[in-house]
Amino acid sequence: MLPAMLVDIIDGNEDWRGFLSAIFLVSSLSGAVILANRGQFQPFSLRIGFLLVTTLWLSTSLVSSLPFLFGARDITFTDAAFEAVSGLTTTGATVFSGLDDMPRGLLLWRSTTQWLGGIGIVAMGLLVFPFLRIGGMQFFRMESSERSDKPVARIQTFAISLIGLYCVLTLLCMVLYAFGGMGWFDALNHAMTTISTAGFSTHDSSFAKYGDLVLVTAIVFMLIGAMPFTAFFLLVLNNDYKRAMDSQILALLLIILMLMVPAFASASAHGSLSAADALIHSLFNVVSIVTTTGYATTDYTQWGTLSAGVFLVAMFVGGCAGSTAGGFKTYRLIILFQTLRVSVRELVYPNGVFPVYYNNKRISPEALQSVTTFFTAYIAILFLFTLLLAATGLDLVTAFTGTLATLSNVGPALGEIIGPAGHFGSLSDTAKWLLIMLMFLGRLEIMTILVIASPVFWRGN
Amino acid sequence: MLPAMLVDIIDGNEDWRGFLSAIFLVSSLSGAVILANRGQFQPFSLRIGFLLVTTLWLSTSLVSSLPFLFGARDITFTDAAFEAVSGLTTTGATVFSGLDDMPRGLLLWRSTTQWLGGIGIVAMGLLVFPFLRIGGMQFFRMESSERSDKPVARIQTFAISLIGLYCVLTLLCMVLYAFGGMGWFDALNHAMTTISTAGFSTHDSSFAKYGDLVLVTAIVFMLIGAMPFTAFFLLVLNNDYKRAMDSQILALLLIILMLMVPAFASASAHGSLSAADALIHSLFNVVSIVTTTGYATTDYTQWGTLSAGVFLVAMFVGGCAGSTAGGFKTYRLIILFQTLRVSVRELVYPNGVFPVYYNNKRISPEALQSVTTFFTAYIAILFLFTLLLAATGLDLVTAFTGTLATLSNVGPALGEIIGPAGHFGSLSDTAKWLLIMLMFLGRLEIMTILVIASPVFWRGN
Repeated sequence: MLPAMLVDIIDGNEDWRGFLSAIFLVSSLSGAVILANRGQFQPFSLRIGFLLVTTLWLSTSLVSSLPFLFGARDITFTDAAFEAVSGLTTTGATVFSGLDDMPRGLLLWRSTTQWLGGIGIVAMGLLVFPFLRIGGMQFFRMESSERSDKPVARIQTFAISLIGLYCVLTLLCMVLYAFGGMGWFDALNHAMTTISTAGFSTHDSSFAKYGDLVLVTAIVFMLIGAMPFTAFFLLVLNNDYKRAMDSQILALLLIILMLMVPAFASASAHGSLSAADALIHSLFNVVSIVTTTGYATTDYTQWGTLSAGVFLVAMFVGGCAGSTAGGFKTYRLIILFQTLRVSVRELVYPNGVFPVYYNNKRISPEALQSVTTFFTAYIAILFLFTLLLAATGLDLVTAFTGTLATLSNVGPALGEIIGPAGHFGSLSDTAKWLLIMLMFLGRLEIMTILVIASPVFWRGN
Repeated sequence: MLPAMLVDIIDGNEDWRGFLSAIFLVSSLSGAVILANRGQFQPFSLRIGFLLVTTLWLSTSLVSSLPFLFGARDITFTDAAFEAVSGLTTTGATVFSGLDDMPRGLLLWRSTTQWLGGIGIVAMGLLVFPFLRIGGMQFFRMESSERSDKPVARIQTFAISLIGLYCVLTLLCMVLYAFGGMGWFDALNHAMTTISTAGFSTHDSSFAKYGDLVLVTAIVFMLIGAMPFTAFFLLVLNNDYKRAMDSQILALLLIILMLMVPAFASASAHGSLSAADALIHSLFNVVSIVTTTGYATTDYTQWGTLSAGVFLVAMFVGGCAGSTAGGFKTYRLIILFQTLRVSVRELVYPNGVFPVYYNNKRISPEALQSVTTFFTAYIAILFLFTLLLAATGLDLVTAFTGTLATLSNVGPALGEIIGPAGHFGSLSDTAKWLLIMLMFLGRLEIMTILVIASPVFWRGN
């Protein structure tokens, strides 16, 4: 929070007091907790793992909401919590309008929550979820860390390289943005929310006013953010092109291409755009939604019904495992598709045995079940929360796409209220808390929350 | 077609010529096919099974469309095909408005297609799909027929009892309808489309103008139509209450109750109905949609957003396996729910083994995979066809709920065009053909069509 406070002090903005109160409160509380638990370190069990991950996200969200709450703007606790959770989970749904007039400290704080959230997600995806065996993430357990005889040292080295890579990519993105005509403050903020595929902007109009160079930079870095971060290490450090080319990367690019074609057709038919503009705008917005970033250059829902269908499907896809992106994730789509293919084959040849492969490796039945269970939970939550949001008085399109957009940590949904041209500020408090739950569910890969919420978890062992 | 022709002759309606042409065409063609294939009977293989089921439904649909096409009304082939497929698959979506002025012969023909479709579906569900191992239907393979040394004779006896039961239930329903104040012609038609959970009515207003006795009769017989027909045999003939009480029956009733409560709340809050009326109307319409019948007493989409959410979820559920109902089906919901529960347990206790049970029997991994694969295919088709229908220019609510309503063989969807107060007549031909495909996909439990459409199926063996 220090940099954001400094910006506010320099700008002569009252909000710096809010940051100072938040910093004071958090440091004293965490100091007390550290002192109270000194020397009580115990080895982690699976149970503690689930608990730790959940409480870490909850407490960080609470802390992140303080600057919003203590700031000079008069906002409710619900709104502060919504904005903080949307930031940390890199969803990018916002309750604020009038961003252009917002104090720069608060803008920087919003971007910072997303940037920190982004690296947190990569770390969880690579180091935590594979060991909790959540939703088929066990495929991505890093082999090197298992074989090593100094696992902690290796993880430390890896974490440091990861943070280094993340910082380098952010700086690179910032420089390119500035080179494309963005001011330095905007470039920094957008770089932080691009690489984390998060989507908070410093303008109500998001990316509408920027030129082609900025848009292309954004497209490239949103894609980078949605790629598995291990792939960069394999590629750059080990020069191992073959292992870096995970199937999910190709699948992601293929899906984007398949969705871009109808989006381009809609943009050409309905918009007043030139062919070149239609191309870059359709590519930008499809990449933004598929990578779960959530920037927009224009209200693409005005491109007609086909475009609405395309962006509905796009909201579902999500990025790669081990990236900053959310959503259902492409490796699960590959596995479900393979399972379907194999099942058809088994219906034709009932005595044949046809295993399912991913990255040329045979998938164990347990891992396969993890994926299908995750899918079941995803769809069940989609329908359940649509019903709950409809009960708060939202129309079907808003309720359904709002559920999908927050569960997938995309941000903007469809419909007039929370579509790319709208914001989440006008929703009822009940609706906002439901969406906060969805953002957590999505970010913690659903099963973590289901485990914590199950009676089995709390029963003595 | 003979009864429908007779009604038209009695009424002095020109349409009887259409029926006569259809009868003539069909008898000559089928006579030729029978003569050409005389004595060439071969034992069935699995492959022939898939092919036979699909071609049987396709050819019957073609035949059923002839009276619509040859009738005095001037309708396109697309509309005739839509109405025939909607009839035979017991979907109940109609392209016709002005049903009250329609010739009685054609009305009777519409109801007849649904009645025949209904018994066809029960027969398929009990005798065909379990052996093709489609979508987990293998749970319902009848044990008696496997153990018998005269399988063909047993199946014949069973088929005759089944048809007998179906006729008795239809007659009973008709008598109760007439007793409740319906004219005999309407009572016959509605009885035929109630027991088959199909939903064609003889009035544009469906069940709006009928009294409580008729509504209660409809509720009871829609529920009967959505129950596994074997349960009646076990209950009546074998007096085996315990085996008849399949888990899916209890689950179906529980789901209806859970959906009825919010529907009742919406009806009370938004309608101008008394409490008693709100109760019977919410129960009627929820039962109608969950059992995939598709009658309506009123435009329940006017009850507000919660009601829209309730009916969206209701469209997904479906009836029991071995019934006339369509939809996802309750036994699959039970199994998916159990799988989710077991998976959470396995995440907490990684070394434990927790099998999934259905009806107190342990489910094999193969059968489990059948269910999850069916679920994957169902959701994939839901999103794919939403996209395709959106491409034809339909809004998101119409495209999504239209896909769901036809894939589940429910009939009416949500939204202004094809909601309970609308009809499918105004859609484009492309949209109608997409919906026809969805009705077939739903009725043939998706996988049958996927098998037929797969290259593996056609490859030489």
